[in-house]
Amino acid sequence: MPLTFNRYGKARVRVLRLQREGERHTVRELSVQAMLEAEGLERAYTAGDNAAVVATDTIKNVVNALACDHPAADGETFAGIVAAFLLDRYAHVGRADIRAVETRWTRLVVDGAPHPHAFALDGNGTPFAHVVATRDGTVVQSGIEGYTVMKTTQAGWSGFHADAYRTLPDTDDRIVATAMDATWTWTAAPAAYPAANATILDAMLRDFATTYSRGVQDSMYRMGEAALAAVPELAAIRFAMPNKHYLPMNLAGFGRDAAGTVFLPTDEPHGQIEAVVTRA
Amino acid sequence: MPLTFNRYGKARVRVLRLQREGERHTVRELSVQAMLEAEGLERAYTAGDNAAVVATDTIKNVVNALACDHPAADGETFAGIVAAFLLDRYAHVGRADIRAVETRWTRLVVDGAPHPHAFALDGNGTPFAHVVATRDGTVVQSGIEGYTVMKTTQAGWSGFHADAYRTLPDTDDRIVATAMDATWTWTAAPAAYPAANATILDAMLRDFATTYSRGVQDSMYRMGEAALAAVPELAAIRFAMPNKHYLPMNLAGFGRDAAGTVFLPTDEPHGQIEAVVTRA
Amino acid sequence: MPLTFNRYGKARVRVLRLQREGERHTVRELSVQAMLEAEGLERAYTAGDNAAVVATDTIKNVVNALACDHPAADGETFAGIVAAFLLDRYAHVGRADIRAVETRWTRLVVDGAPHPHAFALDGNGTPFAHVVATRDGTVVQSGIEGYTVMKTTQAGWSGFHADAYRTLPDTDDRIVATAMDATWTWTAAPAAYPAANATILDAMLRDFATTYSRGVQDSMYRMGEAALAAVPELAAIRFAMPNKHYLPMNLAGFGRDAAGTVFLPTDEPHGQIEAVVTRA
Amino acid sequence: MPLTFNRYGKARVRVLRLQREGERHTVRELSVQAMLEAEGLERAYTAGDNAAVVATDTIKNVVNALACDHPAADGETFAGIVAAFLLDRYAHVGRADIRAVETRWTRLVVDGAPHPHAFALDGNGTPFAHVVATRDGTVVQSGIEGYTVMKTTQAGWSGFHADAYRTLPDTDDRIVATAMDATWTWTAAPAAYPAANATILDAMLRDFATTYSRGVQDSMYRMGEAALAAVPELAAIRFAMPNKHYLPMNLAGFGRDAAGTVFLPTDEPHGQIEAVVTRA
Repeated sequence: MPLTFNRYGKARVRVLRLQREGERHTVRELSVQAMLEAEGLERAYTAGDNAAVVATDTIKNVVNALACDHPAADGETFAGIVAAFLLDRYAHVGRADIRAVETRWTRLVVDGAPHPHAFALDGNGTPFAHVVATRDGTVVQSGIEGYTVMKTTQAGWSGFHADAYRTLPDTDDRIVATAMDATWTWTAAPAAYPAANATILDAMLRDFATTYSRGVQDSMYRMGEAALAAVPELAAIRFAMPNKHYLPMNLAGFGRDAAGTVFLPTDEPHGQIEAVVTRA
Repeated sequence: MPLTFNRYGKARVRVLRLQREGERHTVRELSVQAMLEAEGLERAYTAGDNAAVVATDTIKNVVNALACDHPAADGETFAGIVAAFLLDRYAHVGRADIRAVETRWTRLVVDGAPHPHAFALDGNGTPFAHVVATRDGTVVQSGIEGYTVMKTTQAGWSGFHADAYRTLPDTDDRIVATAMDATWTWTAAPAAYPAANATILDAMLRDFATTYSRGVQDSMYRMGEAALAAVPELAAIRFAMPNKHYLPMNLAGFGRDAAGTVFLPTDEPHGQIEAVVTRA
Repeated sequence: MPLTFNRYGKARVRVLRLQREGERHTVRELSVQAMLEAEGLERAYTAGDNAAVVATDTIKNVVNALACDHPAADGETFAGIVAAFLLDRYAHVGRADIRAVETRWTRLVVDGAPHPHAFALDGNGTPFAHVVATRDGTVVQSGIEGYTVMKTTQAGWSGFHADAYRTLPDTDDRIVATAMDATWTWTAAPAAYPAANATILDAMLRDFATTYSRGVQDSMYRMGEAALAAVPELAAIRFAMPNKHYLPMNLAGFGRDAAGTVFLPTDEPHGQIEAVVTRA
Repeated sequence: MPLTFNRYGKARVRVLRLQREGERHTVRELSVQAMLEAEGLERAYTAGDNAAVVATDTIKNVVNALACDHPAADGETFAGIVAAFLLDRYAHVGRADIRAVETRWTRLVVDGAPHPHAFALDGNGTPFAHVVATRDGTVVQSGIEGYTVMKTTQAGWSGFHADAYRTLPDTDDRIVATAMDATWTWTAAPAAYPAANATILDAMLRDFATTYSRGVQDSMYRMGEAALAAVPELAAIRFAMPNKHYLPMNLAGFGRDAAGTVFLPTDEPHGQIEAVVTRA
């Protein structure tokens, strides 16, 4: 029976690179997944012939060695280096798909100043870089998963389809919260990926915070427009946002008016809103 | 800027259906995600006009109502019912993508006999059904995520690519463990999905257990062949298997020979092997 | 300022022991936590003097070496061996607290027969052994965390306190589900810990399944009685059970009678019921 | 058989309180666990008599009603209010144990200024308040779980016990990382709990960052001293810190010198260091 798709690689290759500039240190911690497609690889499946397989353990060794060679590369650049190395070194490899997820450390602030070598975890959202390289070209993406934000007013939900299964009333004042997944695609490398990514996130959050939201869809689209407007090297941005409902509580039965004051945070069920916004 | 893709829906809609046949009860617990694409929906993004949006809360109500109408439908059938209902009722909806993840309960065995209304969680793997329906047709898939198995011998890994980055030796006796993700696509409905799914899983596990594995790739392909051979209504099966390494420990430094006896279980890094096997 | 308590150790020391008897293999996978209290250890805190500290890396090496020496010991026995070794070898150690959490593998059934060397994960609940040894004696406990069960009838909840904050009606037919944590303490070693533990779990589940539950408290107490009655070497059993509510859905607004058929599974909030039952 | 301990309550009672001061909003999100011990409760276990049981659903209603009454109370104060209410209202309740875990939202910074009603999740660590009230008095604790920090130099580990099971060399330059659990006990209420808790965390982190660490034990003790010195209302502080090892990689086999540059982040096994530091 035909093997119509195959690929393999190593996942969760964790590595921390420590850059020392005098007593000022910078840490870059990544968890890398490197997946390969290669000529001859199908024989490992159909014939038990592993000759074309660069072992996943070997791939891990390559990632670690390259981490040593490039202690200061950002995630996008490092993923690109890994992809290029694998294509260069292994002639039968046709595609390298590298995803680098960052554990982001921020400098501890001690007595008002950022510390040179002490750090705290930035626990809101997981940034990632994603590079797919073939013999014909390379696609670079950046993004963040699970970046969690909330606005407590300047948001509504009204005018939607009504029928016998609708029980939700219109509202022009609600809490909106989400754990945003966003992936953006580059047409060209920006001057620096970390700065450009920060500009993108800032642009999106400014729109989320400062404009009335007629729905997650409405905010999402304008956040995408804002990102594309802020950074010209972007081609497109893809969003997936849960609508993490904070439900107004009705405490009238206990003699309380909870309106606008008390809400039930819920994880499930949640709305799920997705879109891609592209540069014209 | 163009909105080049959009969809939305409700996720984690949990529902337990309880079927009572005298004192013998059957429970079916699902977590449903229902995603829609619809004409006019783009205006919710670009114009804040929600007229085309069936609220995600409404979608939840539909799922619950249909659960009441169909207390005995299996996951695939129920997902198909939800998809068809959404297309039938909402004329502007063009695509309904329904994923139903099962919490599987097995009957408690008391004094050697399955109990009529007491159950224990089956915690190995998460079965799911996935139906995508459009005005042009419907695709039905079934599968399981994270089904965890191990074999402690009759497995090797040898003959793979050697270069300066290879440090792993050949072996003809190793532990192989994985948490299998598998998704299979139906060309026609089988007599009963639950029975057919059980036949598929059994066929795959028989091959995993009873044949020498020259690598995860080798086992994976033959497990796919076995599944396709066992159930004629299958079109294809897609696998993603981590290679969850159990590393031989070297305790020679402590005067012990650990060979073949003591292994270090690891979650990361892990190999990741993927393929699609298709009926000829 | 006084250091009024201190201890340290190594956690998540994972080890798989593979016992080979011809082609029949047995696997025992544990994650061990070994915590020590020792004379002089306080100086590591208050004076930066580490002389009394057996490094946690050393503790890990000891666990691994003992795993090699005792490939067939069950979790309780192995935890006891580790505790005794640490007290014997390190004269200044006064207390060793060893907790061994099991990843339980069950034999795959192939063509109706248990396979000699292929296994599937038993994903319902996590068994553990816990041994605390001092120079004066040893306490052995066994237990399980998160063992998830449900009964769909023969359960009620009525006659409880009523006041203005009560909104829940009485019921004599509800679903009860829990993820049981249970810890039992031994007065003497049974003939074999695995068999005795299985007897205890069976006795508890028989009571849960076959008797009317007037509340989680009611079932819990009788499950404890059943465990103590079944195994004479038990001194006491401690329970903590969430009441994982399956809420009856009201679908009358959609023209459906969901009574007894459709339930909403919830993870939060949950009741939490705890008790210790002791042999008289 | 005697019931030697029992308690019950409701866990994961989630509530968000929204305080509105013009367009400036403040959000306080808690997940509350409220556990009760009460006279007569044992009859729910031993006799199926629920008369003394305030249903866990009722407890949830109480928590929600009190949230409405106290929209601006911090976690410690709110837990105290819940505890006092339960003791006051239900005369047979002898002990109320209330734990309130905070989901901490920080104001989004837009164009350099904190926004009045948009927030981002603070994902590093989970703060909590814990109040235990009886008819004889009340104990208030605060703390944080999983606050993750790292220092990349000014840390060593040397002079520890040496024997045949030791393989770890001395070092005077290593990475130290931990996910700190800390619980502190109050002798008196500070002027404001949030400010006092921030002072405590700052004092601990200053010591962690700015002093040479001769071991996690050494840092832990001095962090406790610093906390107690910073806030006079503190009686004691309890720590549990994993030592999350970042292992130096040896890449000599690949012709690289990785010393001080490349490290392997690991989650397991981990050291585990615990202590209580008390005011003299």
